[in-house]
Amino acid sequence: MRGIIKNKRKIINDPVCGFINITDDIIFDLIEHRYFQRLRRIKQLGLTYLVYPCALHTRFSHAIGAMHLMTQAIDVLRSKGHNISDEESLAVKIAILLHDIGHGPFSHALENTIIKGITHEDISEILMNKLNKEYSGKLELAIKIFKNKYHKKYLHQLVSSQLDMDRLDYLRRDSFFTGVSEGVTGTERIIKMLNVKNNELAVDYKGIYSIENFIIARRLMYWQVYLHKTVISAEYMVLKILKRAKELSKKGDKLFTTPVFSDFLYNEINKKSFEVNDTIIEKYTELDDYDIFSSIKVWTKHDDKILSMLCKNLINRVLYKIELQNNVFDEKYFVQIKNKIKKFIKVDDSLIDYFVFSDYIESNIYSPQKDKINILLKNGDILDITEASDQLNVEVLSKIIKKYFICYINFH
Amino acid sequence: MRGIIKNKRKIINDPVCGFINITDDIIFDLIEHRYFQRLRRIKQLGLTYLVYPCALHTRFSHAIGAMHLMTQAIDVLRSKGHNISDEESLAVKIAILLHDIGHGPFSHALENTIIKGITHEDISEILMNKLNKEYSGKLELAIKIFKNKYHKKYLHQLVSSQLDMDRLDYLRRDSFFTGVSEGVTGTERIIKMLNVKNNELAVDYKGIYSIENFIIARRLMYWQVYLHKTVISAEYMVLKILKRAKELSKKGDKLFTTPVFSDFLYNEINKKSFEVNDTIIEKYTELDDYDIFSSIKVWTKHDDKILSMLCKNLINRVLYKIELQNNVFDEKYFVQIKNKIKKFIKVDDSLIDYFVFSDYIESNIYSPQKDKINILLKNGDILDITEASDQLNVEVLSKIIKKYFICYINFH
Amino acid sequence: MRGIIKNKRKIINDPVCGFINITDDIIFDLIEHRYFQRLRRIKQLGLTYLVYPCALHTRFSHAIGAMHLMTQAIDVLRSKGHNISDEESLAVKIAILLHDIGHGPFSHALENTIIKGITHEDISEILMNKLNKEYSGKLELAIKIFKNKYHKKYLHQLVSSQLDMDRLDYLRRDSFFTGVSEGVTGTERIIKMLNVKNNELAVDYKGIYSIENFIIARRLMYWQVYLHKTVISAEYMVLKILKRAKELSKKGDKLFTTPVFSDFLYNEINKKSFEVNDTIIEKYTELDDYDIFSSIKVWTKHDDKILSMLCKNLINRVLYKIELQNNVFDEKYFVQIKNKIKKFIKVDDSLIDYFVFSDYIESNIYSPQKDKINILLKNGDILDITEASDQLNVEVLSKIIKKYFICYINFH
Amino acid sequence: MRGIIKNKRKIINDPVCGFINITDDIIFDLIEHRYFQRLRRIKQLGLTYLVYPCALHTRFSHAIGAMHLMTQAIDVLRSKGHNISDEESLAVKIAILLHDIGHGPFSHALENTIIKGITHEDISEILMNKLNKEYSGKLELAIKIFKNKYHKKYLHQLVSSQLDMDRLDYLRRDSFFTGVSEGVTGTERIIKMLNVKNNELAVDYKGIYSIENFIIARRLMYWQVYLHKTVISAEYMVLKILKRAKELSKKGDKLFTTPVFSDFLYNEINKKSFEVNDTIIEKYTELDDYDIFSSIKVWTKHDDKILSMLCKNLINRVLYKIELQNNVFDEKYFVQIKNKIKKFIKVDDSLIDYFVFSDYIESNIYSPQKDKINILLKNGDILDITEASDQLNVEVLSKIIKKYFICYINFH
Repeated sequence: MRGIIKNKRKIINDPVCGFINITDDIIFDLIEHRYFQRLRRIKQLGLTYLVYPCALHTRFSHAIGAMHLMTQAIDVLRSKGHNISDEESLAVKIAILLHDIGHGPFSHALENTIIKGITHEDISEILMNKLNKEYSGKLELAIKIFKNKYHKKYLHQLVSSQLDMDRLDYLRRDSFFTGVSEGVTGTERIIKMLNVKNNELAVDYKGIYSIENFIIARRLMYWQVYLHKTVISAEYMVLKILKRAKELSKKGDKLFTTPVFSDFLYNEINKKSFEVNDTIIEKYTELDDYDIFSSIKVWTKHDDKILSMLCKNLINRVLYKIELQNNVFDEKYFVQIKNKIKKFIKVDDSLIDYFVFSDYIESNIYSPQKDKINILLKNGDILDITEASDQLNVEVLSKIIKKYFICYINFH
Repeated sequence: MRGIIKNKRKIINDPVCGFINITDDIIFDLIEHRYFQRLRRIKQLGLTYLVYPCALHTRFSHAIGAMHLMTQAIDVLRSKGHNISDEESLAVKIAILLHDIGHGPFSHALENTIIKGITHEDISEILMNKLNKEYSGKLELAIKIFKNKYHKKYLHQLVSSQLDMDRLDYLRRDSFFTGVSEGVTGTERIIKMLNVKNNELAVDYKGIYSIENFIIARRLMYWQVYLHKTVISAEYMVLKILKRAKELSKKGDKLFTTPVFSDFLYNEINKKSFEVNDTIIEKYTELDDYDIFSSIKVWTKHDDKILSMLCKNLINRVLYKIELQNNVFDEKYFVQIKNKIKKFIKVDDSLIDYFVFSDYIESNIYSPQKDKINILLKNGDILDITEASDQLNVEVLSKIIKKYFICYINFH
Repeated sequence: MRGIIKNKRKIINDPVCGFINITDDIIFDLIEHRYFQRLRRIKQLGLTYLVYPCALHTRFSHAIGAMHLMTQAIDVLRSKGHNISDEESLAVKIAILLHDIGHGPFSHALENTIIKGITHEDISEILMNKLNKEYSGKLELAIKIFKNKYHKKYLHQLVSSQLDMDRLDYLRRDSFFTGVSEGVTGTERIIKMLNVKNNELAVDYKGIYSIENFIIARRLMYWQVYLHKTVISAEYMVLKILKRAKELSKKGDKLFTTPVFSDFLYNEINKKSFEVNDTIIEKYTELDDYDIFSSIKVWTKHDDKILSMLCKNLINRVLYKIELQNNVFDEKYFVQIKNKIKKFIKVDDSLIDYFVFSDYIESNIYSPQKDKINILLKNGDILDITEASDQLNVEVLSKIIKKYFICYINFH
Repeated sequence: MRGIIKNKRKIINDPVCGFINITDDIIFDLIEHRYFQRLRRIKQLGLTYLVYPCALHTRFSHAIGAMHLMTQAIDVLRSKGHNISDEESLAVKIAILLHDIGHGPFSHALENTIIKGITHEDISEILMNKLNKEYSGKLELAIKIFKNKYHKKYLHQLVSSQLDMDRLDYLRRDSFFTGVSEGVTGTERIIKMLNVKNNELAVDYKGIYSIENFIIARRLMYWQVYLHKTVISAEYMVLKILKRAKELSKKGDKLFTTPVFSDFLYNEINKKSFEVNDTIIEKYTELDDYDIFSSIKVWTKHDDKILSMLCKNLINRVLYKIELQNNVFDEKYFVQIKNKIKKFIKVDDSLIDYFVFSDYIESNIYSPQKDKINILLKNGDILDITEASDQLNVEVLSKIIKKYFICYINFH
């Protein structure tokens, strides 16, 4: 059995993209790597499935889908006369495949409570470097492109920009699994319209309406899915749970966890830890949705009333009530709700924050300051989409939208 | 065989809507009526199939699809406590079923050349009245609703408004058959969000992003399909053909046509003719795509060089070259092209217009002046979508967009 | 304008296949040719739209879709190590593109009444030869493959066999436009499983269930669509109409037709005419659905009562009543119906056949005698699908299925 | 906040079914119940996602989808004149909603190792009875129907038979999420064809081809998905893991688990335990995929080499090699493989079974002995589908298909 050369040509069935061909040995190997297999156990949309029951897809299938779109994008650019070598093509496919490799379970909640001072982007880079060593430098160019250190800037933009393959895949994929059909964005058509001008990614002029549609569909997905108020409520519940758990762990309380989760819960982990301590990064690559959720399930019976209540509520989907609006809530109104809650819950004032709190979310759909969507006119000129389109209101789109909310415990 | 009571319950297979149930005898009878069967022979999108080869769907399937959506809309409104009687429900379904019954073949070209002074809307009304007589008054209420004479205004709005079942069906249907997938508009979701306030159709607040998406998708369909420059070129070609045919007929030239088409080609038909002459309307209901197109095919061999050339070009899809832009063309540029054409074509100056011409198209996507999309806020207030949405640029959307073009004969 | 090199790279939007790339100049030219453009005016499924209202797709889109699948099939075979040269690849694509070029309008009815003694397959070959001359021999290899004269037999099988790209496309396409969703057959998966063994097309072993499914889905499409009893009734009505028209023409009666249709109606056309008379073939390439249907519309007012009645019935969709069964109808039962009809219709006995008649249809879904579907086992052996599958009942499948029917005029 | 009447009308977004309306308070309450919410944490297809990466859908969405189809089926039966009261309608919807409520995580593996002597069907019944008490008898009729004790047998058949809503939903759903598009089965069409005859569920005659297609598609899903060899390999790996864990627990070894899983691992649980010990059933309702999988993850580092090796292999997707064939494997061949394995693995002969083993799977696609699919002929007679169809080979279909396999550890 040993010594047999493994067939690394593979076809993956994906309900969103159809058949996906794995055509390079190194890509096959990366997908088989335990770092990447871990992504099978991290849901792309966290707790969104509590609102959209089928939104259970993982970062694994998203990464592979994005790589598939990358293959198509490269074909299109080559057919338009842009010279992309096989080596570059492979590198940019690796870069997109690994762009989210550093994501942890419930990233948002985790990064705000347990693992502070380092982002999943940082961790992606660390892991890519480790993989590069493991595969004797074969990821060199991919990392260069990922970090925007390669002279062909448009290759980086295919990995990370307003119109990268990441967004094109996740928008379509999230739309597919939530059932929010309006999120479908003519991905195929947009890819057919890709072009390069002045070393930057651009979109052929006649693709302008598709881009408008893409931006508006993305906006719809934001409000309908990503920032859906019940989703926010659920995410804040897991955040509060992790915060409480951390608090208790600091006091020395005993909390059931899986061993690997314990290391993160009972130690102060920061960016430095990741950089100097190789076992930290290894342990991190063992952490996934199962560690967090199986612990939360056990905590439903913890002695700490706050922790157990929140956990029970999450598991049985008794989420915080949430009120969402465009303006800051009137302080009086907030106090009024707080007082009602206090009647039911007898806790120290310092802890009331677990039962009622206010916060805001913000988001911007398109920010031309940072990064533009270039429209390539027939005369060869380049315009930003918000200038090329008479419809998209750039001031509105580039404005950071803030929504304010109050959450409070749901008695019944 | 006679005397057997016919089973008028029927299920129609529609690739867009799935199964469509025909649940009322009168609707079954109307669909079987020769006026309605004629719609099987009139393509919804005229010559668009010369650009999108599968866009061959007819006004027949559109009308039935719109009726199907109406059934769903009524269910939704009833479930929200709005009292709609069975009689009203049937009437509004009939109204939408027959809303396009007066459409002729290649309406736009026909109404500008052969049948002047009366629109297909006028003819729809005439035909509905005739059917009402034939079915002893059973269409009374449907006509009232159609003409907006019924006190429940929202029923009329379901038939004709910015958010009527007509648009909801055609947008989805045209998107489906052209393959322009971005035109898909969450029809189901929008219908679920319908409501009534102050006797007017409204959309629940949380439907706001779906409506934005609907308006932007509609805009995309305009530029990608309805006003696609090659489609315009084809439509102008049939218009020029009919104009030339009319011209020749006036001069007394003999033109092959089907008998029924001949009546329209060789006589001056206007609104009055339709009103006073019952045979005109009957003949009109026999006219369809087959009459026009089979005649055009024969005219490819007509002695008149202009007519035969245009017809040959249309049949073999050698369409006008077309240039399209946002501004009026520079007169000099137009003259320059004209002069080039004149070198090849030796015709009288009065006829050069068949070979090179300029014109404009205009369209507005949303016009709040005429008719609003009402958003129903949680507090019961009503806002126009362009006020409720911070994204839709009402000034832009309500502006009539003009695009200017030059067409000229394509030699090769 | 003249002398400009035309861009012959084109993308066609197809709702079934998505984007279709035209990548060869000769293919672009063939699609633009008037012979091929004519296919835009010939519906793939004739009168089936009287049962499935959206089944209006044409032989034009089918031919292009089949060519698209061919491109994919060649990619798959090449990726499995089969050496197919660029010249062969182009030839086999041309062959499938033109395989139906000889189809006329309502082929079945036409070939049984007006144009006898020559099939559309014969005419396809004649037209391909003409095109070959026009394009100075560029179609040589395509014709060789089409006629199975090329040594690589599997290339011919991609064009014409139990598993050719013709069937793969039409099954999927007809399923799509009728809305009979069960006809969807995993086309993509089957193509991925194609292989070649002993110079014959084969399917990899693990594709066996997909092939079973394909055969059963095809069977379903036969009974649900192609041999749907109302479709048969409509097709026999057009056949009877053309038969009557021919009869009257022979008697010297004057019948309105388009000029080109007249040539076929008033002359005896047979295989010889096509071979010796070049104008016959040219005229044939001008004949399409419009000629037949516009004539039928006029005949609704013809003096001959039989002709006008049948035509009126077809146009207004008052089709023959039809009874369909597995066995020959009892002669007595048939006579009984005949006698009922005779009471209403006073015609000579020689003409009663236009009002009541019996016939049968037959079909076989799979005939291993003629042509097998080869399954390629892992050990390299080849088995016919009916041997490889324990489910498919070869005796049943290869049996010619006969269904008997009675049609009679529908009074009401 | 208390005392507010909760809005129990809800719409659930399902990518497979579209919008699903919850129209009854009791159904809303049951869905919110912790027993039912637990189904959100049990994947419908266990480890199938290791082959089809998006097959992550849960028993939760399946149960709700099946309920949705039930609503449609009842509408169809009522429209055909079958009298179904509102009470019956609600009961049959509850019955299908709860039919899988007793499922545990990785049922097949669990029932063969940890929880012996009781099936998930038994547990479903126990839980339904508990819920019935909790809701003061409101589930009485649902349970009667579920247990086939109600006089209208066809209502039970809608819940459990060859053509129940369970199968119709799971086939379509599994097809959707795996991306095996051929599994699509014209669910809508089959439901439209449902009827009742002699108190039994039947299918209208013209639905015969849809049923053939359904059976063949189901067969395809079996071989392509449910019995896919890699899926079997993965399932046997988790089975072997649980078996080893149980073995170690009996020896008194310490194994990390969640507390609730520990109760099952360290005690002998059988049918009696469930019946006499109420805490057992309560604990069971807390067990889900998270308990099993988070424990397996920890076991990758267990001292027992066998356990840790198997767990590591599962987590990193290094599954058993598997050979599958129609016949029993030759004993010599098996011994030969065994010997090879023994060279690499030094273990006691009694434990070799964890590294190499043979077994068989069996399945029958259709078993007319147990339960027929009735076809309702036009004359009112009833025929079993295998008699009504000339295609389906009843002998083959009803035969229990056995496939034999060898699994062995994959070194590399």
